[in-house]
Amino acid sequence: MALVVQKYGGTSVADVDRIRNVAKRVIERRKAGDDLVVVLSARAGDTDHLLELAHQMSPQPDPRELDVLLATGEQVTIALFSMAVKDLGFEAVSMTGYQAGIITDHHHGHARISWIETLPVKEKLKEGKIVVVAGFQGYDDEGNITTLGRGGSDTTAVALAASLKADACEIYTDVEGVYTTDPNVYSKARKLRKISYEEMLEMASMGAKVLHIRSVEFGMKYNVPIWVRSSFTDDPGTLVTAEDPDMEKVVVSGVTYSKNEARVTVTDVPDLPGMAFKIFEPIAHAGINVDMIIQGSSGVPGRANISFTVPKADYEQTLALAEKATKEIGAGPVHGTPHIAKISVIGVGMRSHTGVASLMFDCLAKENINIHMISTSEIKISCVIDEKYTELAVRVLHDAFELHKDPNGGIRIAEET
Amino acid sequence: MALVVQKYGGTSVADVDRIRNVAKRVIERRKAGDDLVVVLSARAGDTDHLLELAHQMSPQPDPRELDVLLATGEQVTIALFSMAVKDLGFEAVSMTGYQAGIITDHHHGHARISWIETLPVKEKLKEGKIVVVAGFQGYDDEGNITTLGRGGSDTTAVALAASLKADACEIYTDVEGVYTTDPNVYSKARKLRKISYEEMLEMASMGAKVLHIRSVEFGMKYNVPIWVRSSFTDDPGTLVTAEDPDMEKVVVSGVTYSKNEARVTVTDVPDLPGMAFKIFEPIAHAGINVDMIIQGSSGVPGRANISFTVPKADYEQTLALAEKATKEIGAGPVHGTPHIAKISVIGVGMRSHTGVASLMFDCLAKENINIHMISTSEIKISCVIDEKYTELAVRVLHDAFELHKDPNGGIRIAEET
Repeated sequence: MALVVQKYGGTSVADVDRIRNVAKRVIERRKAGDDLVVVLSARAGDTDHLLELAHQMSPQPDPRELDVLLATGEQVTIALFSMAVKDLGFEAVSMTGYQAGIITDHHHGHARISWIETLPVKEKLKEGKIVVVAGFQGYDDEGNITTLGRGGSDTTAVALAASLKADACEIYTDVEGVYTTDPNVYSKARKLRKISYEEMLEMASMGAKVLHIRSVEFGMKYNVPIWVRSSFTDDPGTLVTAEDPDMEKVVVSGVTYSKNEARVTVTDVPDLPGMAFKIFEPIAHAGINVDMIIQGSSGVPGRANISFTVPKADYEQTLALAEKATKEIGAGPVHGTPHIAKISVIGVGMRSHTGVASLMFDCLAKENINIHMISTSEIKISCVIDEKYTELAVRVLHDAFELHKDPNGGIRIAEET
Repeated sequence: MALVVQKYGGTSVADVDRIRNVAKRVIERRKAGDDLVVVLSARAGDTDHLLELAHQMSPQPDPRELDVLLATGEQVTIALFSMAVKDLGFEAVSMTGYQAGIITDHHHGHARISWIETLPVKEKLKEGKIVVVAGFQGYDDEGNITTLGRGGSDTTAVALAASLKADACEIYTDVEGVYTTDPNVYSKARKLRKISYEEMLEMASMGAKVLHIRSVEFGMKYNVPIWVRSSFTDDPGTLVTAEDPDMEKVVVSGVTYSKNEARVTVTDVPDLPGMAFKIFEPIAHAGINVDMIIQGSSGVPGRANISFTVPKADYEQTLALAEKATKEIGAGPVHGTPHIAKISVIGVGMRSHTGVASLMFDCLAKENINIHMISTSEIKISCVIDEKYTELAVRVLHDAFELHKDPNGGIRIAEET
């Protein structure tokens, strides 16, 4: 008899009928003999509706009170779900974040779980009940209601699984798992059976759609096997787990893209110490998050060009700050464009295998896609290209690394040599 | 500087604009120097909507989970209200029933407050904050969320006022106070400035519209002055308080009516010991609440007629039970009608003054209104009449006792002799 933590997202509990269907799924699992803790999100749309209400009430709603308001969304679903289970003749008990002992820090709106008092949940499990916990919410050490931020229910589920030492954590959503790339961009995208925590983290830009980033960090830290599944099918989904030799045979597991960044280039920066600081200090001070930075020769002796990327939303402000800085340091004009995309290939196999970068560059070159910037990590290679080539780049890379093939995805080094 | 507990009902906080208006009222009072605890109901309609959801989920929603669901209604209003107050530049903090230390028994849906841990509220008051408490809800000693039943927010407010030893409790609603009779039935109905707890309790059938019966019991037990006021005007409203000499001068304070009962008569009951038991035992066993009972001669020697009233909803079942009983005891046929009304005149002055009953009977007789049953208490006289005469009876009694006159309502004994 296993202890399983299941999490169902907003679309899975969007209305009375879907809630009843999920209740039936859970009961089937219970009949199979498993102990179950079910974490629920608010009904799809409820949180947005409550946010709208709050902003009608106040242009900047008080963060503490906003959490009190938003927390009602999950309280509604856990109550309705527990009614449904009992209506079907099984025992269930709902628990708010407070009742489930989910203790967080004080940061309203984006609180982090500090620890979980598991006794209340364990007691209800002992009584043979299906325990239904409100996701997304907790309380701080002063008894204030807090929320974990968008997607926080995933983190509630994984954190509960970790502290209850559950055998598995299953995240039910409206997609069937984690894909080699965005299926909306490339029809040949293939669902992965298995992926490492590290890869899942790197795939954030794509994975964000299926898993809350902090839930993956939690899973990695406490080594909780996380299944990403659809609540509308019986597909086994994707297992997010610790790296294993199997995975290392795979060079590339996925291709991701992001259109959320813009590029800024400061030309003819005097090649003297402290110049970079003078450019980036005011940007950092404005709370703007700089991602990639490259410095290259500008052609002019003693001068360099510095290019970097920032979130698209901060593009205009960054240009202004950069221009101000260039005047002070006597650099040349500032160029920039918001029309870029970041394409990444991700795979733990890169650690042990070479030739990935060159194959990536070669593919893009063959399509006359110009690479503006490159950054690499141990298991990821990212290139900044013109936005218009995004979909083309995703497809050619997906083909080149043969991500449509092989149970574990990616190509084998054997094929590469 | 006084400590005041204010309660605002669902219509007073029905939408964002009304919530903001109430917030302004409260802030004005705060500026005047008072410490404030504000108890709020759910937005008008919210509770009904949640009940509807629950019944879509289950024909008989689990009581514990129904309370978890319903409690979200008040949590929404306290959050929005606190946002509004802070948006207007003042300090407020919302508290759920749990956070406010409202401890109840285990009876989900109609829980009774057992005691209140006032420390959390007192601490927030000390910090100079307006404390905003969710009405209608509490928690039992196992940490389960409970609700107090319809109108429960009144009880929350009075109970808080009692345990905080507040200087006053103000119940804001959509009427301006307690009236001598239902203004919808008689335009000459007059708002009372003052009424005793006992009278308010007897007026339940009418007062229920303005005050939750248990809140009056609480007020009487702990001697909390309760002001019933409108949140849409500045009228001082009605003070519900302990009996005082002033009130005793008044014979009758109000005329009430109830159309919720039905009459059943068992004829020719053998005049032997134990007959009444044989008739009423099965009715009581069925959980049917018998109100008035009268026994009179049936004309047949050694036989009596027994008439009694029950809630209209239980009329058919009562008839069946009574007929079954009559066969066993060999009584005559069972008559009955649901088309009756109970008219009552209420006043603490009756204790010291005679002639009220005779004046009441005389008034009804003058209008050819036949009296089927009579019951009296220390401060109330009730007559059962045909339903069709209800409004006429209310008007003639209101006139006869001159309830439209005199600051404290009712006629003086001086005028009677």
